Amino acid sequence: METIHPIQPLTGTGTKPKRKRSIIDCDLHLAPLRGGYQALKPYMSRYYREQIETWGPRVPGQIGMYNNGGTNGTMRDHKMPPGDETVALDYIRSNLLDKYQIDYGIITGMDYGINTIPDTDYAAAVCSACNDYTIEHVLAKEPRLKASIMIPKQDSELSAKEINRVASHPGFVQVIVSNGAEKPYGHRRYYPIYEACVRHNLPFAIHVSMEGIGINPPPTGAGYVSHYAEYRLARAGIMMTHLASFIYEGVFELFPTLKVVMIEAGMMWIAPALWRMDQDWKALRHNTPWVKKLPSEYYREHVRVTSQPIELPAKPEMFLPMLEAIHADPCLMFASDYPHWDFDSPALAFPKMPDPLWERIFYTNAAELYGLPQRGAAKGGND
Amino acid sequence: METIHPIQPLTGTGTKPKRKRSIIDCDLHLAPLRGGYQALKPYMSRYYREQIETWGPRVPGQIGMYNNGGTNGTMRDHKMPPGDETVALDYIRSNLLDKYQIDYGIITGMDYGINTIPDTDYAAAVCSACNDYTIEHVLAKEPRLKASIMIPKQDSELSAKEINRVASHPGFVQVIVSNGAEKPYGHRRYYPIYEACVRHNLPFAIHVSMEGIGINPPPTGAGYVSHYAEYRLARAGIMMTHLASFIYEGVFELFPTLKVVMIEAGMMWIAPALWRMDQDWKALRHNTPWVKKLPSEYYREHVRVTSQPIELPAKPEMFLPMLEAIHADPCLMFASDYPHWDFDSPALAFPKMPDPLWERIFYTNAAELYGLPQRGAAKGGND
Repeated sequence: METIHPIQPLTGTGTKPKRKRSIIDCDLHLAPLRGGYQALKPYMSRYYREQIETWGPRVPGQIGMYNNGGTNGTMRDHKMPPGDETVALDYIRSNLLDKYQIDYGIITGMDYGINTIPDTDYAAAVCSACNDYTIEHVLAKEPRLKASIMIPKQDSELSAKEINRVASHPGFVQVIVSNGAEKPYGHRRYYPIYEACVRHNLPFAIHVSMEGIGINPPPTGAGYVSHYAEYRLARAGIMMTHLASFIYEGVFELFPTLKVVMIEAGMMWIAPALWRMDQDWKALRHNTPWVKKLPSEYYREHVRVTSQPIELPAKPEMFLPMLEAIHADPCLMFASDYPHWDFDSPALAFPKMPDPLWERIFYTNAAELYGLPQRGAAKGGND
Repeated sequence: METIHPIQPLTGTGTKPKRKRSIIDCDLHLAPLRGGYQALKPYMSRYYREQIETWGPRVPGQIGMYNNGGTNGTMRDHKMPPGDETVALDYIRSNLLDKYQIDYGIITGMDYGINTIPDTDYAAAVCSACNDYTIEHVLAKEPRLKASIMIPKQDSELSAKEINRVASHPGFVQVIVSNGAEKPYGHRRYYPIYEACVRHNLPFAIHVSMEGIGINPPPTGAGYVSHYAEYRLARAGIMMTHLASFIYEGVFELFPTLKVVMIEAGMMWIAPALWRMDQDWKALRHNTPWVKKLPSEYYREHVRVTSQPIELPAKPEMFLPMLEAIHADPCLMFASDYPHWDFDSPALAFPKMPDPLWERIFYTNAAELYGLPQRGAAKGGND
């Protein structure tokens, strides 16, 4: 049980982050799939190659449902020149990695739409092709970039098979799925995936996307929302569902070394969710006796959260207490979401923070989670 | 636009609430429908009376889906003796109204299950019967109790008709629906209901219940959760959906005098939801140009929130800043949820608060919303 004690003074000891200190960025997107799935075809069987030639990728996207921000979802000044993967990598090097002194950037998936299609075998073929493409065209070419294993989560056995197939590549640092899901991720149907994650010491990452799309149910318990701004809130609600599901289904008791990463659903909502769950656990734990600890303890030990898009409290004085309430010290990891419209600049996204907390959020937490070298050990590190 | 300024010092000026000071309780349940719908039959046509005799109420309930707390959902020491409505009223007088010096108690609906059935005409008949029963057996007998108009929300025109039929009775102080819904409540299909609410100056109240039940979609964007504790979190997510829907659909621009009451979904989650919406409005308001103000401004002006079940921050020092972040001063109203298992005692539920804030939460906000006399003007008021 957590001891209630006064808020530690987090203000007053802070220094402004040094602009030149290097960081880890835990959510960035490389979009080399321009031109449909053409780039994936070399990694697929003739059966699916011919399907793609005839029908195109036949994978749903969110843009058909909801507007996004910026220009088709990206920053207005994101103008990647035409060309192949080499061009894309050069662009991201100069516009993100070098510009912001990023030691490591975690690429978070390529096309979550594949998690929403009813044809599970096709989903498996696309995920394999994405992973092979990533090995050859990203991981082999830019050691600062690390990647996420895409899985056909429609079938947990096939997913485990895919994890087992590629997990030995050191460039893959986690398994990734979309936030939109047929069932909350604590459900036993997913356990073969977690067995594979634990076997290979890979976190299971959930990235907002595809809520209410394809085979997923409507994005809220009141059905479909009308506008993108509502959709953004709904996504936090779904991530909250997954968080509660992991805890109350007892997943962290069954898989004591499993780590879960919640990406791009915001972060401040976690505080009242933990308060609610801790109180309810005290009153209702006879319903779920396999949940042996306070929900906030499971969260603190097993869950990591990326920062973007940050909810900034209306009163700036609330920022640090809220960071503490979401256990930012061990749990929060900076993410930019480059090149999306709501990109959080490492230099501007966070207000002034105490130096040790800054260090954990911008480097140490991610380095520990992903098994990356500590600051300074990395080739090209600036500090 | 809201000006960002330092947190006002809320501590240091507080006094402990006087135990003898009277209050308004904004969420209490009288369950006179023991024995199925037998008590409603006198208010229904022979057609439905005979259906109830043959089939019973045929209304789904949550208990069939999820466990609750306490003893079948009520406090363990809630032991209402057998008998008719007179017995029930006497019991609630001595165990709630007199015991806690409650000047007014707002009865919040009778059976939300009626909001989830596909037979809309039957729903309309039951709602009318509930309202007539309430007039005769509750409002006529206990002036401290006020009630909520039940409507067949499956059909907004029928709902408006029912509101128009009974709204002139002074004992009805709001219109009520379940949180579980086919569509978010900002949707235009509901506008005839809001026209009727505004016409009769009645708030539109949403009470958690029936999420994922009957004709409603699954309770989360990831489908059905497994346990009641997860369900409680999901309910907050759905209430958040409704809040965002009212704001982004522009309902408060169309109905500038409409008030919405969010009942029993918790309250602290509102703070990060407002932070998120205010930020997103700045970045995305070109998508919804009819939303002319910051979402938090609409919330502050149009939305009222009942307190139970309170999420208590892990650090007590966070309580008052969080109350300020959810605009408790104008928006929060105390509720006990009597006689449910997670009953919040007026004497114990809240930590020490400054007196003016206590007064708004425990009396003034509800008195203003529901047009009830200010403290002391009520017969039997203790202060």
